Amino acid sequence: MKLQWWQGPCQPLDHVARTKAESRQQQLTKPAGSLGRLEKLAIHLAALQGRERPSLDKLWIAIFAGDHGVVVEGVSAYPQAVTGQMLANFVSGGAAISVLARELDAALEVIDLGTAEPLPPLPGVRHLYVGAGTQNLAREPAMTLSQLLICLEAGRDSLLRARAVGCDLFVGGEMGIGNTTAAAALACWLLGCPASELAGPGTGLDGAGVAHKARVIDAALALHHAQIDGPLQALVHLGGFEIAALTGAYLAAAQQGIAVLVDGFICSVAALLAVRLNPGCRDWLLFAHHGAEPGHVRVLQALGAEPLLELGLRLGEGSGAALAVPLLRLACSLHGQMATFAEAAVAQRPQ
Amino acid sequence: MKLQWWQGPCQPLDHVARTKAESRQQQLTKPAGSLGRLEKLAIHLAALQGRERPSLDKLWIAIFAGDHGVVVEGVSAYPQAVTGQMLANFVSGGAAISVLARELDAALEVIDLGTAEPLPPLPGVRHLYVGAGTQNLAREPAMTLSQLLICLEAGRDSLLRARAVGCDLFVGGEMGIGNTTAAAALACWLLGCPASELAGPGTGLDGAGVAHKARVIDAALALHHAQIDGPLQALVHLGGFEIAALTGAYLAAAQQGIAVLVDGFICSVAALLAVRLNPGCRDWLLFAHHGAEPGHVRVLQALGAEPLLELGLRLGEGSGAALAVPLLRLACSLHGQMATFAEAAVAQRPQ
Repeated sequence: MKLQWWQGPCQPLDHVARTKAESRQQQLTKPAGSLGRLEKLAIHLAALQGRERPSLDKLWIAIFAGDHGVVVEGVSAYPQAVTGQMLANFVSGGAAISVLARELDAALEVIDLGTAEPLPPLPGVRHLYVGAGTQNLAREPAMTLSQLLICLEAGRDSLLRARAVGCDLFVGGEMGIGNTTAAAALACWLLGCPASELAGPGTGLDGAGVAHKARVIDAALALHHAQIDGPLQALVHLGGFEIAALTGAYLAAAQQGIAVLVDGFICSVAALLAVRLNPGCRDWLLFAHHGAEPGHVRVLQALGAEPLLELGLRLGEGSGAALAVPLLRLACSLHGQMATFAEAAVAQRPQ
Repeated sequence: MKLQWWQGPCQPLDHVARTKAESRQQQLTKPAGSLGRLEKLAIHLAALQGRERPSLDKLWIAIFAGDHGVVVEGVSAYPQAVTGQMLANFVSGGAAISVLARELDAALEVIDLGTAEPLPPLPGVRHLYVGAGTQNLAREPAMTLSQLLICLEAGRDSLLRARAVGCDLFVGGEMGIGNTTAAAALACWLLGCPASELAGPGTGLDGAGVAHKARVIDAALALHHAQIDGPLQALVHLGGFEIAALTGAYLAAAQQGIAVLVDGFICSVAALLAVRLNPGCRDWLLFAHHGAEPGHVRVLQALGAEPLLELGLRLGEGSGAALAVPLLRLACSLHGQMATFAEAAVAQRPQ
């Protein structure tokens, strides 16, 4: 296979900016380390943005939506029509992420990769019609390689639009009834563990529903196992359109030098796929929260990620990442605006 | 003793508003419970504010500062002059809380209860000159009963000023070199445990420093034990001016019906004192974060508090509470602005 776009190099970190930011942190009027993780965050953002004082004014939120053939196996508490209905809700302003985007002054882009019932054009939605949802991964590959490549590019294209308007921080979100099943199947393959360890209630299955979902995933893993030789084939066999798009967006962000704030379980699975496809992208991924889905913590561990929040969130849509944005912004404000000991004539700790 | 002002009743919660808010949460376009703790927060704020859709636009931050006689025992890593220097930094805009107040569009009030070297008047600071710092609690009572009453009232007066401008949320902060020693001593008395379990590094003591601090606290507890018959006498013997003022502010907030967001270890000790003095105030106290100081978790447990953040913060100044304010505001925005299933024509989960 020829070299693919996502295998190209990621932007390097700026170690001069990092060193300057570290030095600045030591001079601010507070005991060293007293702002905890916010200090390290500001320093890391300095290295990513290549400036001593980073900022996160321009936020881009892209929601990728797609349906999942596997819902015929009875793995979701909600009817599949909700995927399309929520697309309308995103652009009309009533969804959680719509509210959050307004409050955070973010650009919100909504991308329909393919619903089971193709939607008539919705103003404000980019319809890509990659397929009428994925195929049922319990019986056959979820998508073709050609569909996968389109989805990866859809993610990259969103990131390039974000870059064109000067985006400082990229948040990807997802919507797709059934997508915790696809994400858990991918996580099982990535981590090499059985579905019983990673399948969870998603939007609200009961115990019996979760057990059934785990059986569906284990059967799918057994069915596809021999055909999966890496992350790309895992996405083809077990993936979702929106998961692939997120993977592409994260890879492109690292190549273009734009920091990413990763949302919950599904986005974290996409992040782990991205890191497996191009390890250099890891530095560009910040993690927003520990979600309620039980597989999330395992995926975060595999990424060496320490998310900022733990609030029992399990909505998706990028909502958990959006909720963490103010912390990142305030970390930058504190780093950039606090006075130094010298400026404020405050005594430093005796050496 | 006659009935004191803080023993008067706290505002009751509005159960009608709570029920309406609970019902609204069930109708919003998301799986029930998927916004995790933010849902309960919005419902609780509805009950506090007496309206189905609460809001936290007007934020008041009051910083109470005072010096501590116990620093002569060598319990702090910083020189005592820093208390006064930081007062100047608060009002000139260079301190962490100054930056946060600006970014959050909050009113910031700075109250000097008494520094070891009395300060010349600083524009923007309310100087109350309760004393030249407290006395050394390792040798004698930290303050007189009369000083305590002035400090409690100073807290109440700040809350009343906040109320006069229509404050929706009150954040108290503290500054005082040596005040983790006073707070830990109070926590030991409140929780009935030895200082080795609660004393911590504060702004940066090493292991030997923490051990010394614990010995100073244990000796103080032994010295004052027989004279302490309740929270008021605990404050007289072991307290700090700023800790007492926070206690008064929290009690007044509950009486006036204004929600409070409690900052770190020292503020949580003041909150526990407030709850012991008037248990009705507990409902009005929200908790922002798990700080790095080891005693904090024990005090939070005694309060039955589950803070929102855990970021390794240990600065004080109300900074941890300020950092959690966006989460509360976004919880209100989501609760108030999301569409219902009916409004958005989104299918609900089948019953």
